[in-house]
Amino acid sequence: MNTPRNRRIVLAARPDGEPRLSDFRMEEADAPAPAEGQVLLRNIWLSLDPYMRGRMNAGRSYANPVEIGEVMVGGTVSEVAASRHPGFKEGDIVVGYSGWQDYAVSDGLGLIRLDPAAAPVTTALGVLGMPGMTAYTGLLTIGQPRPGETVVVAAATGPVGSAVGQISRIKGARAVGIAGGPEKRRALSEEFGFDVALDHRAPDFADALKAACPDGIDIYFENVGGAVFEAVMPLLNDFARVPVCGLVARYNDRRPPSGPDRLSQLMWLVLPRRLTIRGFIVTDFADQQAAFQRDMSAWIAEGKVHYREDVVEGLEAAPEALIGMLKGRNFGKLLVKLGDPQA
Amino acid sequence: MNTPRNRRIVLAARPDGEPRLSDFRMEEADAPAPAEGQVLLRNIWLSLDPYMRGRMNAGRSYANPVEIGEVMVGGTVSEVAASRHPGFKEGDIVVGYSGWQDYAVSDGLGLIRLDPAAAPVTTALGVLGMPGMTAYTGLLTIGQPRPGETVVVAAATGPVGSAVGQISRIKGARAVGIAGGPEKRRALSEEFGFDVALDHRAPDFADALKAACPDGIDIYFENVGGAVFEAVMPLLNDFARVPVCGLVARYNDRRPPSGPDRLSQLMWLVLPRRLTIRGFIVTDFADQQAAFQRDMSAWIAEGKVHYREDVVEGLEAAPEALIGMLKGRNFGKLLVKLGDPQA
Repeated sequence: MNTPRNRRIVLAARPDGEPRLSDFRMEEADAPAPAEGQVLLRNIWLSLDPYMRGRMNAGRSYANPVEIGEVMVGGTVSEVAASRHPGFKEGDIVVGYSGWQDYAVSDGLGLIRLDPAAAPVTTALGVLGMPGMTAYTGLLTIGQPRPGETVVVAAATGPVGSAVGQISRIKGARAVGIAGGPEKRRALSEEFGFDVALDHRAPDFADALKAACPDGIDIYFENVGGAVFEAVMPLLNDFARVPVCGLVARYNDRRPPSGPDRLSQLMWLVLPRRLTIRGFIVTDFADQQAAFQRDMSAWIAEGKVHYREDVVEGLEAAPEALIGMLKGRNFGKLLVKLGDPQA
Repeated sequence: MNTPRNRRIVLAARPDGEPRLSDFRMEEADAPAPAEGQVLLRNIWLSLDPYMRGRMNAGRSYANPVEIGEVMVGGTVSEVAASRHPGFKEGDIVVGYSGWQDYAVSDGLGLIRLDPAAAPVTTALGVLGMPGMTAYTGLLTIGQPRPGETVVVAAATGPVGSAVGQISRIKGARAVGIAGGPEKRRALSEEFGFDVALDHRAPDFADALKAACPDGIDIYFENVGGAVFEAVMPLLNDFARVPVCGLVARYNDRRPPSGPDRLSQLMWLVLPRRLTIRGFIVTDFADQQAAFQRDMSAWIAEGKVHYREDVVEGLEAAPEALIGMLKGRNFGKLLVKLGDPQA
């Protein structure tokens, strides 16, 4: 095989607030050659996810930042283009973290082989991948929905939120979904079966949320932060649980919002209502991987869990798509199609 | 027995911010007569506790408010002055909730007979009572200290904080205690065995806290709120636990503190550091009552847990003592001595 050219998108500058296109840079170089024990991966799908915004900042959060000049991190579905690894052969389809580029080499660590006949390979980046498992583990381990309880989730047409709502209903809870705009709101009811669908952009959102939760809120799955959380707070029931996996509404904040200081308001709820607020990252629950795959695959097969994908074409479109996602412009699991398998 | 006169302190007005003496009123009336199945209690000790401030506000928190004109709530140690109840006889010493008054009748529900030979009866209002059990249940069930971890607690000469520190050390953790002023600070080390003792009034408090926690904070037992929590926040380790049982520094707040809005700062810590913040009330863990009594009695007998009492004389002194406690003026478990047993 001739050495292919590798296009890659690197972090050009750390964003101040909202990322701009100039914070990214496309580069081109020869693809790396796999050494003994390695595979060369041709990436065919790139996943875009909110956590990427955090990696663009300096300073360690729960993971190291992407350094200036480094390839942007990202989950990928790839085809094995060449293999010098006994566990993989050319044409295998794998999921891993190859980042924002056309090619990557890997020693196989963290790669999982996919069976394209079992499920569309893109689901390994969405409902059967990190976002789906975030919903499953956070909801079931921290949220622990019981029949008849009310679960509220925002960004509810996204891959995490839509799974949270559908799993809640499988567990017998009422699911209240929040999304931005009438089209997404419609999808909440029609595609994902939420009991109530709300538009957070509606001027009467807080009142509508209150009306949608006549028995209060038992679980608020926090993946957006900001104004939605403020509307949720007064509705939380005694012993309510708040798994926190994301704060996308705040990812571009340059500084704390102005007052009043709502921290003491929150603590005044935590105490008498005995709230549990707990942050988590999906990797904390790695031991639930097998249970997640088993349950979620079955629910999809039974038609109990639906998913929606929002596909963007071409690596070069990734920066704008990420910027748009942080503003809520995606509609479903955001994927960048990098190419087709060639085997 | 002649009908004794009963002095009682009722809520005269709801405080706006800090309670004032005029928010309380002393009344006098004949003591009630016990009906068949009741006992007449002569109260000899009244416990003063921060939760009482919350009960002076209108609106339900986790318990109903004291109504205007009603006797202030409070835990008491009492002598049975007359009994028409088969389970109690004259001269028995009991702990219960008779409130701020000299006499009360009870049908026995919630009364626990004490053995004055086993422990000083006042401990039933402190280290062996509600405050001690608050420390025990919150620390062990939510905090779950492990050997080598760092536990931080404020109001640490108080009955809850001092027990939190000492139980932490029993479990092999490092205990960092915070109190107001040099005298209390000294007691933290000398009486209660905290590994590090800090004065939150010191101008370099935040730096001193940081220096005292070189490995960060694994458990912050929240019983004060306010500035201490703000100094603690940045030091919380991954997977730190924050049991929340009180916010005494904020009990007199009329409105939320001015900005910046620290809520988003907190949520930004909760997520990457996977914090657990959980409110609780001691009655949530009523099933641990027997384990608490067994363990705490043993620890006191073994000299592993010490306690300190701050005694005020006479029912009429209770309002000023409560007002002072909300400003941190007590030094140990605050008790009002109402009288001596007469049997």
